[in-house]
Amino acid sequence: MEPVLLNGEWTDSSATESFQASNPANGEALPAEFPVSPRAEIEQAIAAADAAFQVVRSWPGERFAAFLGAFADAIEARTDALVETANLETALPVSPRLRDGELPRTTNQLRQAAAAAREGTWAHATIDSAANVRSVLGPVGPVSVFGPNNFPFAFNSIAGGDFAAAVAAGNPVVAKGHSSHPGTTKLFAEAAHEAAQATDMPPGFVQLLYRTSHADGELLVAHPKIGASGYTGSRSAGLVLKKAADAAGKPIYLELSSINPVFILPGTLEERAAAVVDEFVGSCLMGTGQFCTNPGLVVLPAGPSGDEFVAAVKAKFEEAPAGTLLGEGVRRSFLAGVKTIREAGAELVTGGDSADATRVACQNTILKTTAAKFVADPETLQTEAFGNGTLFVLAENVDEMVAVAEALEGNLTGCLYSDTGGLDDDAYDRVAPAVRQQVGRLLNDKMPTGVAVTAAMNHGGPFPATGHPGFTAVGVPASLVRFGMLQCYDNVRPHRLPPLLQDANPGGLAWRLVDGNWTKDDVPA
Amino acid sequence: MEPVLLNGEWTDSSATESFQASNPANGEALPAEFPVSPRAEIEQAIAAADAAFQVVRSWPGERFAAFLGAFADAIEARTDALVETANLETALPVSPRLRDGELPRTTNQLRQAAAAAREGTWAHATIDSAANVRSVLGPVGPVSVFGPNNFPFAFNSIAGGDFAAAVAAGNPVVAKGHSSHPGTTKLFAEAAHEAAQATDMPPGFVQLLYRTSHADGELLVAHPKIGASGYTGSRSAGLVLKKAADAAGKPIYLELSSINPVFILPGTLEERAAAVVDEFVGSCLMGTGQFCTNPGLVVLPAGPSGDEFVAAVKAKFEEAPAGTLLGEGVRRSFLAGVKTIREAGAELVTGGDSADATRVACQNTILKTTAAKFVADPETLQTEAFGNGTLFVLAENVDEMVAVAEALEGNLTGCLYSDTGGLDDDAYDRVAPAVRQQVGRLLNDKMPTGVAVTAAMNHGGPFPATGHPGFTAVGVPASLVRFGMLQCYDNVRPHRLPPLLQDANPGGLAWRLVDGNWTKDDVPA
Repeated sequence: MEPVLLNGEWTDSSATESFQASNPANGEALPAEFPVSPRAEIEQAIAAADAAFQVVRSWPGERFAAFLGAFADAIEARTDALVETANLETALPVSPRLRDGELPRTTNQLRQAAAAAREGTWAHATIDSAANVRSVLGPVGPVSVFGPNNFPFAFNSIAGGDFAAAVAAGNPVVAKGHSSHPGTTKLFAEAAHEAAQATDMPPGFVQLLYRTSHADGELLVAHPKIGASGYTGSRSAGLVLKKAADAAGKPIYLELSSINPVFILPGTLEERAAAVVDEFVGSCLMGTGQFCTNPGLVVLPAGPSGDEFVAAVKAKFEEAPAGTLLGEGVRRSFLAGVKTIREAGAELVTGGDSADATRVACQNTILKTTAAKFVADPETLQTEAFGNGTLFVLAENVDEMVAVAEALEGNLTGCLYSDTGGLDDDAYDRVAPAVRQQVGRLLNDKMPTGVAVTAAMNHGGPFPATGHPGFTAVGVPASLVRFGMLQCYDNVRPHRLPPLLQDANPGGLAWRLVDGNWTKDDVPA
Repeated sequence: MEPVLLNGEWTDSSATESFQASNPANGEALPAEFPVSPRAEIEQAIAAADAAFQVVRSWPGERFAAFLGAFADAIEARTDALVETANLETALPVSPRLRDGELPRTTNQLRQAAAAAREGTWAHATIDSAANVRSVLGPVGPVSVFGPNNFPFAFNSIAGGDFAAAVAAGNPVVAKGHSSHPGTTKLFAEAAHEAAQATDMPPGFVQLLYRTSHADGELLVAHPKIGASGYTGSRSAGLVLKKAADAAGKPIYLELSSINPVFILPGTLEERAAAVVDEFVGSCLMGTGQFCTNPGLVVLPAGPSGDEFVAAVKAKFEEAPAGTLLGEGVRRSFLAGVKTIREAGAELVTGGDSADATRVACQNTILKTTAAKFVADPETLQTEAFGNGTLFVLAENVDEMVAVAEALEGNLTGCLYSDTGGLDDDAYDRVAPAVRQQVGRLLNDKMPTGVAVTAAMNHGGPFPATGHPGFTAVGVPASLVRFGMLQCYDNVRPHRLPPLLQDANPGGLAWRLVDGNWTKDDVPA
């Protein structure tokens, strides 16, 4: 059985249960056996993380930046192994997806987080010089990170965005890997361990457990020594963790589900239907539809132009190969979602079944319904069917589009396509405000699947897309804020203040809010 | 029965139950009868707030600023009535407390919030010009505010800090008053209604219900049309609301409890014991100990200097008059807390009983115990006894002080007193990090009861002091952030962006994070 990374050592697990990953391309189990860590091991990891936190909590951002930079280098040195292993475990294509897309994105995130930790602006240092009250976001404490199945690199529990943000904010991480790609996660953990040693991090700073029981997952996020948690994954499992963390008063940042509605206003189809068909098909089938921001709901005008749009998408869906899904669980839940949506009255336009007996795949799938039906049963009809499918909702008029928008749950994104000549402007002004309130990111004339790692990005949104509408999981420095606690210093003697709050701005690197103005200057004497 | 403020009208309540406030100075019921609003009335209020939100959600900050400013003026015009009514309902002294302290603080908060709404920096506008991704904190939706008993003005549900912050962030408010001072709350609501009419706010923008059943309070914070809630009050009631809001995925910002530990390091007593005695007595008995930041736990060296300190405080506590408490509930729960702490092994030094048969009052109370006993049963020994009492914990050495600090629950504040010559520096460096992680605001050489309304203030802290360690309930602009949702605009056409995200910075008022730099400039063409 593979060892776990515990308190700075690769350690034989005391597990009595184990699991194996499988290759979705042929359904076969992969040879390595990984432990299901028992409760005592989780307690050990938390104790080691807490010990590490006692050491690092007063460190300057530079120390975390050094680790993150070394880690990015160590990942790049393992590129071939990572790409090969992830391809075996997830069936995601080696190129361009894994090697040219997700891996560089992952190291880029780590390096952006390193730069943010070094600079310090993220911590929102605020100084009121007259009252001598000063505050800053300090590290919240050891963070547990639960990674999802769909981004084995960029959201990996020990290398992805939550990990990078938690570390850059100054916190040790207890990573809980996703069971579908443990071999990939192991390689990241080896790189992280190497980087931690090279940059003199304390032993419990970065740790990895591959799997826990559900009850022990709840223990982890609610533990008194855990500062906060990050979770990306299924809504059902996430809500169980949320309940446990909430009851203990521990912040947990969740990314749970999203069907990412796309509204195509009438003028668009008159102006450029063919182009939008191509954009939609590319976005919806990208990664076999397994993106958090996959467009799973398209609202468009009923009538000939809408029908033509659906027909054009149907032709392309039937022509396109059915990609391999990440695993058997995804196939099952996709088919269950399609079934639920059909039972609620939606009509199957194409696909709807498994695609292949030898690998894990479903047909590219289209369902359709009317806005009237959608509004009559919105909860069921916005069931997430995570994978290569979508539901078209045909609206008789703008009123119906508004009604659909108002019936939406919280989502990560919402898109509005409108004609460029201004014909759709009135419709836009009616639909957009309703969409706006239900989504984290509002797009114009663009599909939602690209999530740029940029400061203004919001990869978040109202519940149930996430657990809190005020935070983003992607984008630096904003994603770091989740793993900080607001620490105020009132009348504290100058030499006892953390460097970021002293009169002299260390290195002049961080923006600070001094007496109401953002500046990199020192506090005037 | 008094009417409720519903959808812009003073409306007869459909209540079948009512309640009266009582005067703590003589225990007598006050004549006015106030309704316990039934569920249908709460639903009406929420529907009206939602309708108001549809109108105001695209308004610029200036509109909310105008209302807040007019409201502050309208409050000042009612000063005499407010002060007189609040004195009758709470027994808090007219002067200096109500007239010269809390009322100006309240109008100052409203005016600071108005200035923040007008300026817009609070919304953290972030623009990445190359990617054309832009984000801002937009209004989260109608906010329900539950005010506490202990600040009838500054934390009033319809005039206090949460109200001001929610409105400045652009949200309608459904206020749920505290049952101990409904007459005071009514006067504020009259002023708010007048200001709302004078500044053309929609009818459901500001509403007041005096009381609801517990179940209906849960309905309110979990309602789909409610964006977020603010609550200040008892831990038990707050946790019930938290559970309901959490399950619905609705943010709720809670201020629940805090015993505000004070650590007096040994050199301090050698250097200036008498001065610290005076500071402590003043802080602990201020407002009859009914401040959220009242110092309820003092850790100091065992031995002659600690004993002398306790004796000196005892003398002053016995000499000082026992203030009138806010109400019978406070008296009961204070005495229950004292009983719990004594049963856990603490010794009564003075006080510990009711003070007076004709009014609601308890004796100024001191309990004491040892650090060893505290650490053996920390949960019981940090029971909050809200009122004019404190628990002294005598520590044999610095190790024991550290152990006490590590056993603390989350608190709003933590104070460390140390000598000015450097003798206590080693002790400080050991005790302070442990205190730091458990409190929102760390003070040096100063008691915690003054909470300056300043940008860097943190009136917050880890659970169970609050529900989330990242936010403050006091201080502008930071307190507004709680009532925003992160709204990102990706590739949105320029004229459709909210003014704060357009290339031209409206009025050049708001600081914005443009391409990584905080600036008030326009985005360069």
